[in-house]
Amino acid sequence: VIAVLAGGVGAARFLRGLVRAVDPSGVTVIVNTGDDETFHGLHVSPDIDTVTYTLAGVVNPETGWGIAADTFAAVDALERFGVPTWFRLGDRDLATHLFRTQRLRAGASLSQVTAEIAGAFGVPVRLVPMSDDPVPTLIEVTRDDGPAVLRMQEWFVRERCEPAVLGVTFSGADQARPAPGVLGALNDADAIVISPSNPIISIGPILAVPGVRDALVARRDRVVVVSPIIAGATVKGPADRLLGALGYEVSCVGVARAYHDVCGTIVIDEQDAARADEIAAAGMRVLVAPTLMTDARASEQLARVTLGSL
Amino acid sequence: VIAVLAGGVGAARFLRGLVRAVDPSGVTVIVNTGDDETFHGLHVSPDIDTVTYTLAGVVNPETGWGIAADTFAAVDALERFGVPTWFRLGDRDLATHLFRTQRLRAGASLSQVTAEIAGAFGVPVRLVPMSDDPVPTLIEVTRDDGPAVLRMQEWFVRERCEPAVLGVTFSGADQARPAPGVLGALNDADAIVISPSNPIISIGPILAVPGVRDALVARRDRVVVVSPIIAGATVKGPADRLLGALGYEVSCVGVARAYHDVCGTIVIDEQDAARADEIAAAGMRVLVAPTLMTDARASEQLARVTLGSL
Repeated sequence: VIAVLAGGVGAARFLRGLVRAVDPSGVTVIVNTGDDETFHGLHVSPDIDTVTYTLAGVVNPETGWGIAADTFAAVDALERFGVPTWFRLGDRDLATHLFRTQRLRAGASLSQVTAEIAGAFGVPVRLVPMSDDPVPTLIEVTRDDGPAVLRMQEWFVRERCEPAVLGVTFSGADQARPAPGVLGALNDADAIVISPSNPIISIGPILAVPGVRDALVARRDRVVVVSPIIAGATVKGPADRLLGALGYEVSCVGVARAYHDVCGTIVIDEQDAARADEIAAAGMRVLVAPTLMTDARASEQLARVTLGSL
Repeated sequence: VIAVLAGGVGAARFLRGLVRAVDPSGVTVIVNTGDDETFHGLHVSPDIDTVTYTLAGVVNPETGWGIAADTFAAVDALERFGVPTWFRLGDRDLATHLFRTQRLRAGASLSQVTAEIAGAFGVPVRLVPMSDDPVPTLIEVTRDDGPAVLRMQEWFVRERCEPAVLGVTFSGADQARPAPGVLGALNDADAIVISPSNPIISIGPILAVPGVRDALVARRDRVVVVSPIIAGATVKGPADRLLGALGYEVSCVGVARAYHDVCGTIVIDEQDAARADEIAAAGMRVLVAPTLMTDARASEQLARVTLGSL
């Protein structure tokens, strides 16, 4: 039985390998919902969708998110009404958000509808949002026009991560409850894997949900993280910039420090082998392996190595 | 200044000609909303959309509704979730419903958002829903499995008008208020035109909104209807079947009888010239003209003849 903490594209690519390495029916994936946003009145859960579409084999392979060969007729047509269309929802993707929003309005929880959507797509693992309560990630930035607080997708997509980050908060996290199954999965798992996701804005929100960090601290020797930083940079996304902005060294050493209290083992890339002793000296077990997930086989190999490290 | 009572395709084709015949800025179109329905959580106003798209020049010319060359990726993708997809919303069309629904949820009235959408499409007339309150048209039918009450789109689209009709009710009409501008337009108009729409389920709901029928009765000599029945049949839609089911003769004579109290003049087709005396004898002025709207020029000519009849 395995529990995985997941953000978006990095997590999805790791999971694509994990389901080849182990029986998927024993895997619970706890997904970040701090990026969830309402567009055109629809509830969009970007990380849940990325994991769902990837495990369903329908993800756009170029971007890592959205549906392959999707079209954009609806979002293009929305431009006529002068509403913001910087978040490019595809037409097939829109069906997911329409269904989710309708179910939520009918009283279903985000967990319920996440399971329904995953089921409709034939996803073989159990997908659980970190919480059924909204916990929007807010990014404090400075721009030319002064300081501002942006929601995650505003900073990430609309402003292309350009404004310098001063801080990150998980709004409402202290009032949020873990979704049903989250704490149970963490307590029961033989292994807890923290995906190679953004430590600050993908995994950070999950850890901010009351009970999650404590569950990991209590089982630190069964927790392993795959470093999303290779040779001082991210493969994709702004993890490097966010780590730096929040005072962490932009390296696997910085990642290790960020997770030190919750995680007993880190998998770092071969390119970072020289940093292994430094991490080990600070009290974390280190495994050195190829971590670049160039294809499903590489992901599968990384999953095997990661689970084998415990 | 002209007021037009409008349903869907027939009304839209008439209006396409009217805006060529007169200054559109003096035209107020009062549109049936009895067919409005919620699909996938979105508020769809079929008749308003048909009139909007037609006057914007973007309507699908084959069907008379929907947007030309629209695609159906979203509704096809919705099938995965097991939700009913018999109402085929196009992707571009979906943008209209997303915008409308979002504005309604934000507190805008249906009148406001109807004007916003018409403005975004460059519609040159004033489009007003009959009411901002919901007045769903319910169709009492008999089916193989017994009697049932269907909403208009269920009977019309899902069941293809097949179940035999016992009666039609306009649910909540007695509590509904005319939308802002409806009664004013009817009182101020030099001419009130009842479009060649379905008398029972397109114009009937408008007349059922408190105040509308009285406004027409008071101005009966300024009201003209274009018969939607030519030689005992409709050009499009189930007007003939509904007239018959509710006890009207399926002919221009039946149409005249249905509108006798509210309308002083009827335009009937040349094919029905032999019935003119019969209608006139019952107290309605009759104008015989070509009424088949084969193209925009034919619609324009019909609009000129109709207005000239008053």
